[in-house]
Amino acid sequence: MKVDSVDVFYLAMPEVHDIGDGSQDMLLVRARAGDHTGWGECEASPLTSIASLVCPMSHSACHPVRDSVLGQRLDGPDDIARIARTVRENSLDLLQADHTLSGVEIALWDLLGKCVERPVYELLGYDRSEPKTPYASALFGDTPQETLEKARHVRSLGYRAAKFGWGPYGRTTVAADADQVHAAREGLGEEGVLLVDAGTVWNEDVDAAALRLPALEDANVLWLEEPFVSGALRSYRRLADRCVSVRLAGGEGAHNALSAEHMVDFGGIGFVQIDTGRIGGIGDAKRVADYARSNGVQFVNHTFTSHLALSASLQPFAGAQGDWLCEYPVEAKSLARDVTRDHLTLDESGCVAAPSAPGLGMELDLDAVQPYLVDVEITVNGQTLYQTPDLTA
Amino acid sequence: MKVDSVDVFYLAMPEVHDIGDGSQDMLLVRARAGDHTGWGECEASPLTSIASLVCPMSHSACHPVRDSVLGQRLDGPDDIARIARTVRENSLDLLQADHTLSGVEIALWDLLGKCVERPVYELLGYDRSEPKTPYASALFGDTPQETLEKARHVRSLGYRAAKFGWGPYGRTTVAADADQVHAAREGLGEEGVLLVDAGTVWNEDVDAAALRLPALEDANVLWLEEPFVSGALRSYRRLADRCVSVRLAGGEGAHNALSAEHMVDFGGIGFVQIDTGRIGGIGDAKRVADYARSNGVQFVNHTFTSHLALSASLQPFAGAQGDWLCEYPVEAKSLARDVTRDHLTLDESGCVAAPSAPGLGMELDLDAVQPYLVDVEITVNGQTLYQTPDLTA
Repeated sequence: MKVDSVDVFYLAMPEVHDIGDGSQDMLLVRARAGDHTGWGECEASPLTSIASLVCPMSHSACHPVRDSVLGQRLDGPDDIARIARTVRENSLDLLQADHTLSGVEIALWDLLGKCVERPVYELLGYDRSEPKTPYASALFGDTPQETLEKARHVRSLGYRAAKFGWGPYGRTTVAADADQVHAAREGLGEEGVLLVDAGTVWNEDVDAAALRLPALEDANVLWLEEPFVSGALRSYRRLADRCVSVRLAGGEGAHNALSAEHMVDFGGIGFVQIDTGRIGGIGDAKRVADYARSNGVQFVNHTFTSHLALSASLQPFAGAQGDWLCEYPVEAKSLARDVTRDHLTLDESGCVAAPSAPGLGMELDLDAVQPYLVDVEITVNGQTLYQTPDLTA
Repeated sequence: MKVDSVDVFYLAMPEVHDIGDGSQDMLLVRARAGDHTGWGECEASPLTSIASLVCPMSHSACHPVRDSVLGQRLDGPDDIARIARTVRENSLDLLQADHTLSGVEIALWDLLGKCVERPVYELLGYDRSEPKTPYASALFGDTPQETLEKARHVRSLGYRAAKFGWGPYGRTTVAADADQVHAAREGLGEEGVLLVDAGTVWNEDVDAAALRLPALEDANVLWLEEPFVSGALRSYRRLADRCVSVRLAGGEGAHNALSAEHMVDFGGIGFVQIDTGRIGGIGDAKRVADYARSNGVQFVNHTFTSHLALSASLQPFAGAQGDWLCEYPVEAKSLARDVTRDHLTLDESGCVAAPSAPGLGMELDLDAVQPYLVDVEITVNGQTLYQTPDLTA
């Protein structure tokens, strides 16, 4: 079969707030071939990704993403890899292309899986989908007390692992950060797996980050995530050398497999976190999962939006027993929940797994999504390059 | 003073061809503060960069670029650095932001320089602008004979250095590539500095690239540029270890200083090529120039558009005597030439230098530019987020 159409839909909450919550909008991708439809999701700035999908060509290495996808043969996983390579080659100088490709590539896997009636993880070579321990991903409270209560709540929901991040962390004093971390530990209990996300707050400043290590070690934090901007390899390496038990985590900013692999090679991280909605899709994420495993680094998904994105992010390491943790958004906005009829709920042992249904195994709820649809029109020299398509067509 | 406005203008040739010529369109940036106006240029996909400038916020780390620039204080170089940092922080998850920031940042330097009546290179700390040896940047011909004639032509124009790239190179046989390289050497003469640009054609394949080394060594090629995709650090390092006299060059794809520095740290390159229109602007490029110098690597600009972009790309290494080469586009389309009244022509010794006039030292020719103006309109939920502004206002 051939890729007949690629349509994208900008969805957003009625109000988008200036907070570290990435579930407030999304770019939904619908790919069609023959009678089959696949769905995917791009992470962040839907309007910019729409533009990169439909923009006029600048030159031979700066084509719009759609040029390299429409009409392409799609009969197996190799075709998806070829399409992704073609996008990279034809859109080499179009920076946003990697984010846009991500959602498109995910939709192609969903489509292919539905067509051959197999879950995506099987197409990736895994026999089965291993249960993962979900960690509840939440923002630090404004005060340690608020964080304590959030952590207690997360624990009461049955989570054995939780991550706190952003908010005030790293923005005031070392003592205040220590209080936040200890509050999270107290709320979660001694047995819980505690993770801390610094949200790149120290940019490249190793000493500023190192001052926070004693509290993290003391609170038995498993990982410190993104102390620095993604790809600050020298800073990661130097901080890793100063850690005793805590490990560094990073990689969510990676928009291709290479830059994530460099975090493994040169950054000294213990956990590589990949967002399939950014890195170029499921194929690139699988490549990183394999690379990490062969280098003694654990792979973890990065996901803070819908369960469609969650399913897509679980596939690349679905069958890898050693990669036992999974990011699981617990504070997502209604949009992220409403977009699918299916949800990846915790099983009786508190674990989640990639669904065994064909493709990504998620049914969209198009009626529920409709109210979130953002109407966009882009015209260039009088020609309409994009107009929000009919979601129910 | 404060940044009062940032306007962008999509300019394009009447017809854009599917060839490796990046001078076919551009995004011109106009920044204003008080009575002063500065101009900059973003590299590639104007529509996508426009979208990233004006898009609705996705969350706190995904603001449109303009949010972090408008109204900001601008009294000195530190303010420009602060604005760039703010854009990076507020648009962390907006991939295209780095390209967009690049043109905006350049416009702010031009504006500041005009305001204090000093050339940008002085604001960067250089006493004077050293003459650079321009290399004529051209595409390989379709045949060795065509390349031979192109090289003779370039030599007849007085260039002592030339780069040939893209076209058929790397796409057929090792022998055909050798013929192309030898034809370029023959046309340029034994004394000419010959550079070869592989345009990322071997992706990450070290062996495929290594097969081309003997001909490059034999033809006394100074550098082999971009054998691999930007940032394929392991591949660069392994190929560098197999070079005898030829050096590797790369870095044009870098969209922040860190990724260029990693090419120095881990890629084994001998020349780092920076496009100020992509890397985040002049500040990031200057950081890389300093870093390269302290690590024994030469800095070279990457420029294939207008002389406004050329001036911007010369500033970061204007005063560095050791960085003696400069990319100089010779096949640019009329748009690239028409956009400025001033041009950086070769002096009697065949060299070019950053101009000593205030700012970037280039006067725009707005009348000449007008016919290239592309009319764009972007509406989101009925609200016009972008409409091509008046260029002459």
